[in-house]
This record gives sequence, structure tokens and C-alpha cells, in this order.
Amino acid sequence: MRLVVAGASGRMGQTLIRMIAETPGVVLAGAIERTGSPAIGEDAGRLAGLDANGVIVTDDPLGLLTSAEGIIDFTAPAATVELAALAAQMRIVHVIGTTGLSKEDFARLKAAARHAVIVQSGNMSLGVNLLAAVVKRVARSLDADFDIEVLEMHHNRKVDAPSGTALMLGQAAAEGRGIDLDANADRVRDGHPGARQKGHIGFATLRGGTVVGEHSVIFAGENERLEFSHKAESRTMFARGALKAALWGFGRKPGYYSMADVLGLGDF
Amino acid sequence: MRLVVAGASGRMGQTLIRMIAETPGVVLAGAIERTGSPAIGEDAGRLAGLDANGVIVTDDPLGLLTSAEGIIDFTAPAATVELAALAAQMRIVHVIGTTGLSKEDFARLKAAARHAVIVQSGNMSLGVNLLAAVVKRVARSLDADFDIEVLEMHHNRKVDAPSGTALMLGQAAAEGRGIDLDANADRVRDGHPGARQKGHIGFATLRGGTVVGEHSVIFAGENERLEFSHKAESRTMFARGALKAALWGFGRKPGYYSMADVLGLGDF
Amino acid sequence: MRLVVAGASGRMGQTLIRMIAETPGVVLAGAIERTGSPAIGEDAGRLAGLDANGVIVTDDPLGLLTSAEGIIDFTAPAATVELAALAAQMRIVHVIGTTGLSKEDFARLKAAARHAVIVQSGNMSLGVNLLAAVVKRVARSLDADFDIEVLEMHHNRKVDAPSGTALMLGQAAAEGRGIDLDANADRVRDGHPGARQKGHIGFATLRGGTVVGEHSVIFAGENERLEFSHKAESRTMFARGALKAALWGFGRKPGYYSMADVLGLGDF
Amino acid sequence: MRLVVAGASGRMGQTLIRMIAETPGVVLAGAIERTGSPAIGEDAGRLAGLDANGVIVTDDPLGLLTSAEGIIDFTAPAATVELAALAAQMRIVHVIGTTGLSKEDFARLKAAARHAVIVQSGNMSLGVNLLAAVVKRVARSLDADFDIEVLEMHHNRKVDAPSGTALMLGQAAAEGRGIDLDANADRVRDGHPGARQKGHIGFATLRGGTVVGEHSVIFAGENERLEFSHKAESRTMFARGALKAALWGFGRKPGYYSMADVLGLGDF
Repeated sequence: MRLVVAGASGRMGQTLIRMIAETPGVVLAGAIERTGSPAIGEDAGRLAGLDANGVIVTDDPLGLLTSAEGIIDFTAPAATVELAALAAQMRIVHVIGTTGLSKEDFARLKAAARHAVIVQSGNMSLGVNLLAAVVKRVARSLDADFDIEVLEMHHNRKVDAPSGTALMLGQAAAEGRGIDLDANADRVRDGHPGARQKGHIGFATLRGGTVVGEHSVIFAGENERLEFSHKAESRTMFARGALKAALWGFGRKPGYYSMADVLGLGDF
Repeated sequence: MRLVVAGASGRMGQTLIRMIAETPGVVLAGAIERTGSPAIGEDAGRLAGLDANGVIVTDDPLGLLTSAEGIIDFTAPAATVELAALAAQMRIVHVIGTTGLSKEDFARLKAAARHAVIVQSGNMSLGVNLLAAVVKRVARSLDADFDIEVLEMHHNRKVDAPSGTALMLGQAAAEGRGIDLDANADRVRDGHPGARQKGHIGFATLRGGTVVGEHSVIFAGENERLEFSHKAESRTMFARGALKAALWGFGRKPGYYSMADVLGLGDF
Repeated sequence: MRLVVAGASGRMGQTLIRMIAETPGVVLAGAIERTGSPAIGEDAGRLAGLDANGVIVTDDPLGLLTSAEGIIDFTAPAATVELAALAAQMRIVHVIGTTGLSKEDFARLKAAARHAVIVQSGNMSLGVNLLAAVVKRVARSLDADFDIEVLEMHHNRKVDAPSGTALMLGQAAAEGRGIDLDANADRVRDGHPGARQKGHIGFATLRGGTVVGEHSVIFAGENERLEFSHKAESRTMFARGALKAALWGFGRKPGYYSMADVLGLGDF
Repeated sequence: MRLVVAGASGRMGQTLIRMIAETPGVVLAGAIERTGSPAIGEDAGRLAGLDANGVIVTDDPLGLLTSAEGIIDFTAPAATVELAALAAQMRIVHVIGTTGLSKEDFARLKAAARHAVIVQSGNMSLGVNLLAAVVKRVARSLDADFDIEVLEMHHNRKVDAPSGTALMLGQAAAEGRGIDLDANADRVRDGHPGARQKGHIGFATLRGGTVVGEHSVIFAGENERLEFSHKAESRTMFARGALKAALWGFGRKPGYYSMADVLGLGDF
């Protein structure tokens, strides 16, 4: 599968270029950066710390996409929307890890998905998506006698709490249970909050050191507990998930897909 | 729902009697012990450390079952087979937590299930059955790049290793992955076992103190890990599971069911 | 060692009576309750669910203490202060697990400790006291590049957060590091608290199910983490700690001691 | 502090060069490789993936050490012994992370330590050394009613079990308790090993994925458990430990020191 990497000189772009180089069945067909980037004209392999591979970084996606079968894109909303339109024109796979997309952006991506195979997810890691599917399914099986708690730990430079992924897991639990998360979330406990309210979903946040990201969802019942956890050791798993999504989308009929589809989690 | 408890003076029987007393929607309709038990003729409530409840322990199930809607049974294989035949006659629910059943015993239980609602499981805990279903489902979703490990901890008086539940979880993983557990289990690692073989399922055993039972199944992939755990705080959850099974079976059409059915885990 | 149990009909009192019955080297010499308690005149063994042992519950400690070598006391501040005065008179061991003591109470206990062997602690568990000593010692060894986080989980009926023991552990960390806990505690993280401030000590609280009590202190540095945890499986460990304290104090010279002394943690 | 790095083109050497570049108070004064290494004559900064820094890799330590205040050395026993002799001549700090040293090698290092400040350890990580000290101290405080278990997890390419660090932790526990590890280690549990023997120290091994290294020591008593864990996220912490050791040794009087000394753990 011939793949183009957008945002080629960024942290994720470089990781993708290295991973493509060592994965059988995929080949780097092009490398894109935004106009004005100092990386334009450089060799993409060298940028990623590899030997030169002859793929020169460009700010013109059009030519590249004609001869490509997929594009992986961890960039910014404006660029992503534009690339989706091109992917639709070429009828190729577009894997989107870009965050911060607005409703309008999503509408455009969905329009593009009439002709492109679009796989979009806020978290490209296989593990976290699988965890969310498990949590939703388990929350559906267990009644409210099981208290649900979401715990996460991240490095000391993270500025928001709880993490987006923790909220995504809380949301999965709420959906499984058929309740509204916002109306049932315990996000702060300090002093004398009183006894835990049945049906609520609690969040707890740890910050420290260089932890890449750990998430646990706990179902605590009478005398037994289930804990489902994900531990990320490095950011490369996001690249790994994106690559898997691209290969999964290759040859598939156009549509708007999620990582849950890629993993076959639809019927969880 | 009118329930009879078999093995009424045993540890599980007493726990069940106490739990029935505090659970709305169920009522203790009778208490059975084996012929010759010193508990025969005693008040079942008193035996369980409650106030007297007027239910006198008997060794004659026949009369009791006529007016009951279910029986919960943590006894011995011979008694269980007999009780299943009576439950079939009365067309009531028979929840079986008895262990050590032979193939012939199972055949008889299945015959009885033509007329009785039989729910049987080697582990009546909601959580462990749910964990096994999750593990099987996750093992189906992830390829062999994810190494599967089963870890368990129990108190220092446990004599076998790995625990039966650990093996059950390993079996669930093997089924999800479509492999034979015995041919792929790493049960001992000591000295220089060499690099881990892809596709194997490893077991590790901790023993100490008074730990009731903790089980974890780890899926360790490249730079990420999923961990699914169950922690038992007390043996009462087995009684809780049995009671839930009885209520679930009430009014259901005759058949042979498992705790996975009770939890609606059939399609995991 | 001849021991008197104060608060004999309470939950802790009963646990103590049962534990004394099964511990070699100690004997139940008396059982006290407050004046007016319905337990007065009852057999202490029976009260604790054992066979009768001939020790009749009384509200008059004076007679009992003459022939005793120690008293274990999980009662209320007023009673504890009075018992300490008597223990001083008899020059015996007084183990105090009573909570909610005021500064004045402490002053009186310390006065009594001129003649009695007083062992007092807010948490009688061996493990938690050991954990606190370890945390203090480790906090002294590691610089502020290691972020300190305290995590705890308790059952869903607990009304305060963080738990008293979590705060005790945070205090131990603060002392080890030579800082003031109140001025450096991160007790709430929600929304956009910004990057973690160096030197702060964070707290996170989980609530759910029937968890007796679990505490972890995490030291998260660059690329490595130390985690020190305590898990309580039952409240009996508080009784166990008190009994150990009594035996430790037997024959010792009068003074005011803590569980850290009992455990030989003074030089941690 | 002017530091020389031995083994400059190896994995640890490069990590050290990068870390020295970003650490205030230390400066790279030289870079050594074995005679014949292709790195001889190269710029040390470039080798480590940094900009050129003008430090040219050489196979002649003598000149470099005259103007240096310390050397960090993760090489091979023969080279290490030689460097120790030179360090003694120059009366500088020699931090040794080399493994596989023989008794004769140790004797020579100790001789060199009459004039050099030698810090040697089999594991340079601050955290693991601290954990070992904690474990030894805790094992001394708790009696054999607390069962000790050592659990470790490493990546799937590790060939030995339990890990050297797990055995080091088991050894620390055995020393704390005053017993011989070999005579009391439970290294295999499979089938029907029977109840756990009091006083033994158990080991359990997990292998999977890319886990850098996690170790836990559990003290499991009656109804309570203490767990002390270390989690390594990357191998850089070994370099960090070595650098800390060098700074600690600067200006100290000659002697043979361990990481326990660096951390001030001598009196744990």
C-alpha cells in the first residue's frame, strides 16, 4: 500500500515515516508539510533520523495523492478538511488523527466520506479504543450496584484534567449504562462530599513524572471489583494504530469509519 | 420468589440464608441438609446467625420443592444430581454451584434441564464470569503480537497453582484466539527459559497472607498494555451470583444455562 | 499477659475479645463498658460470638485493672483520659486507638505516661504505620524532581475525602521533604489546572463498592516511578496491631509511645 | 564538574553524552572508545545525535583524565579495571555501571578506591536501589507472618527469569529477615505445590510486549498487604543515576561507594 504522510516533519510524522520503513506491505509514497515549513525540500528519511530515502517533502499534496492509496494525517483541522476533499477526489484512504475538529469540520469529513475511506478517531491507539468498547459493553451488563470510577495518570506537564481519554472512557461507561455523563459525573471530591451517590461515575487524576498515559476503569460492587486498564509506554502506538487503520481501509468501500470499526468492535 | 437452600448449615448455605433475608423479592421457603446432619430440626435463621425464622432444616427435599420456585445448591455431586431430577419434576429453577461434577453428572443435569431451568457454573461470581467473557472477546480482536499473561494471587493456604479460575481465564483467552491452551501455556519460567514464544499464554502465581482471590489478564503489545482484573473481597459474591441467577431463571423456559447467560454475555 | 478490653461490646471490642482468645501469651482479664450499656452483666465471650468465658462485662474499671497488666481501648476521648489515669496508678500498659482526641486530652495522656506505658496511634494497623515511615524516609532521600502523589480508595459510604490515612501519608511525605503540607497540597484537579507545580503533593480519591481501604504513595520521577501501597482486607488488622502494641509494652519502662516505636521504625 | 564518558559510542554512552549536555553543573570533558572502534576520531556530540560539540572520541584515556574530575563507565570488566587504576592516579571520581565483574576485578577496584572515589552498582537506577533499601528495612521490621513475594514483568525478549533485579530485591528481603535466600526461595509453582511454607520468599515472572522493567515486592499478612513497586519507563534512568553518583562523589574523600551511599540509604 502506497502511503503519504501529512505533517511529515512533526513528531507523529517522523514516527510514521520510521514505522512505514519497517512495516512489510506499506511504502512511503510521499511526505507533505505546510507551505513555508523549513522541511520543504528535505529528504523525508533523513528528517526521521533514517538514511535518505529519496522522498522529498513537499507542500503540494495533489501530485502525490494521484499515485497514492492512502494518506495518514495528524495535522490541524484546516489542513485535514482540505486533504479529505482531495482523498475523496482520488477515492483513497484517509486516516485522521487530527484533534480539535469542529462540527463544521466533521460535516465536511462526512461529505468527503462518500467517496473516500475515512477513518477518524480522537485516539488512534488500538488499546484505548478496545478498552472503551469493553467498558461500554460491561457497563451495559452490570447494574448501578457497581460503582464506576475512572482513574488516569499522566506526566507533570499535562494541563487539563481529567484527560480527554478519561472522559472518553467515562462517556463509554455512561452510554453502556444509558445515562448522561455530564449529569452523573463526580469530578471533584474534597473535604466532606458525603457518601457516594449511586449511579454516578467518578473521576480521579494523578499527575507526575514522565508517565505517557495510564487509564483505569473500575467497577466496584459488593465484595468484588473489576478493573480494566490501559498503559501506554510510548507515543508510537498512535502511529501503529494509524497504520493498521490505513491497511484495514485499503480496498474497502467509501465511508466514515472509526477505530472501533477497524478493530471489529462494532458488536461489542 | 420462594427459594430453598440446599446444604443449609454449610458456609455457603448460611451465607445464602443471610442474603435471602436481606434481599427484596426473595423468601426462604426451605432449608435442606443431608440425612444425619446435626442441623436437621434446627431453625435455619438461627443456624445462620440471625433471629429464628421458623424454617426448620430437613433432609426431605420433596415436600419443600412442591411449594418452591427455585433451589440454590452448593453441595456435592450425588446430591446435586438428585435435586436436579426433583427440580425437573417440579419444573422449577435449580442454581448449581457444586464443583467436581463428572461427565455422567453433567449428562444427567442436561437431561433434567429439559424440564427445569438449570443454571450451572464453576464460579458463581458475576465479576469473574464477566471477566472471562471480556478476555475471550478481546483475545479475538487482538492478534498474536499481543502477548497474553494471566496473573493470580491467593492466600497462603491454597494448594494448587495456577488457580482453577486462572486456568478458566487462560482457556477463555485461548478460545478467543482459536488455539489450544495446553499446547500453548507457559506455566513455569525459571533460570534461562529464553525469549517468550509468540502466541503462548503465560501464567504467574503469587501466594500470601489472606488474599481471597485476585486475577489479572494482561495483553502486552508494542508500547501498550491492556490489563483486565478481578478482585474478590469476600466469598459472599458467590452467594450473590447464585441469587441473581435464581431471579434471572424465574419464569424462564426450561434449559441448561450458564452465568454467561445470566449476565447476557452470550454475544460478547 | 492479662488484658482488659474497654468498649467490650463494640465492633472493635468484640474483635479484640475473639483475637485474645486465639492468641497465645495473652488472656482476657476483664471487659469494660460505659455505665448504662445493656452489655453490663453479660458474658464477654458470648457477646463476641464465642462460648461463654466467665468474664462478665462491668462499668467499674478500678477492680479489674488491679489484677491486669494491660488495657486496650478503642472508646471515646473522655473515657480514654480517665482510663489513662487509672493505668498510671496501676503502672500498666494502655493501648489507645481512640480517635478525636483534643490537645488537652493529649496533654493528660502524656502526663499519665509518666507512670503508664501508653501506646497511642490514629491508625493501629502495622502496615499503614510502616508505610508512613517508609514514605517519610523515601521523601527525605529523593529531591523534588520526584512528584509525590497520594491515591486512596474506600467504600461508597465514606463521607470524607481524602481519607485521614491519606492525609497522614501526605504529612509523612511533607515531613520527609521538610515542607508544609497545607501550603503544598493539590487536592482538586478539574478542568484546566495547568501543569503540575514542582514540589507539590497531589491527592486523588476513588470511592466504590465495599473496599475496606487502599492507599498508595507514588514518587514519579523522570522515566521511573516508585509506588508504595497498603491494602486492608478487613478491620481485624486494627485489633491485631493493638494486641501487638500491648505485648510490646509489657515490662517496658513508662512513656508515651507510637506504633512507629512498636514496629522499631524510630530510625527510619 | 568535568566528566569523561567511557564507551562513548554505545547506547549508554550516547545517552550519557546527551544528558550531560542538558544538565547544569556538568560538562563533557572527553569521550573514550576501545582501540579499533569506528567511532575514534568522530565528534562525540554528533555520535549522540546532537550538534557537533568539538569533543573528539579517542582511545587514549590518559590525556583526558588529567584535566577531568570524573569518569562514567558502562563498558567491560577489563577496561573498567584499567580505568580505575588511572582514576586512582588522578584522584578523581569513577562511576562504574559495568556488569559481569569477577572477584579479582572487585579486588582491584577496591585497591583503586584508596585514591579514587569509586561508585559501583549493578543497577544505577535511583529507584531500584531505593526500593532494595526499603525492602531490606521493611523485612527487618515485619516477622515471618508476612509472606514475601517478588513479582516482575519485562519485555518478551528477555531470556532469564526471574530478572537479576528481582533476585536483588529477594536478596534484600532475605538479608532484612536474616535468612539465606537460596534455601528459602519459591521459584516454581505449578500443579499441586501445597500450601505456602512460612518464611519462604516467592518469585513470579511475567513476560510480554515491550515492558522496560517493573518490580514489586509484596508483604502479605493477615488481612493486610504492603506492596513496594518500581516501574522503569526508559533506560535513561540508568544514565541519570550515574550522573547523580558523579556529582555526589565530586570533592568526596577516596573510597568504595555504592548507590545506597549516594542516596544516603546507609542507615535504612
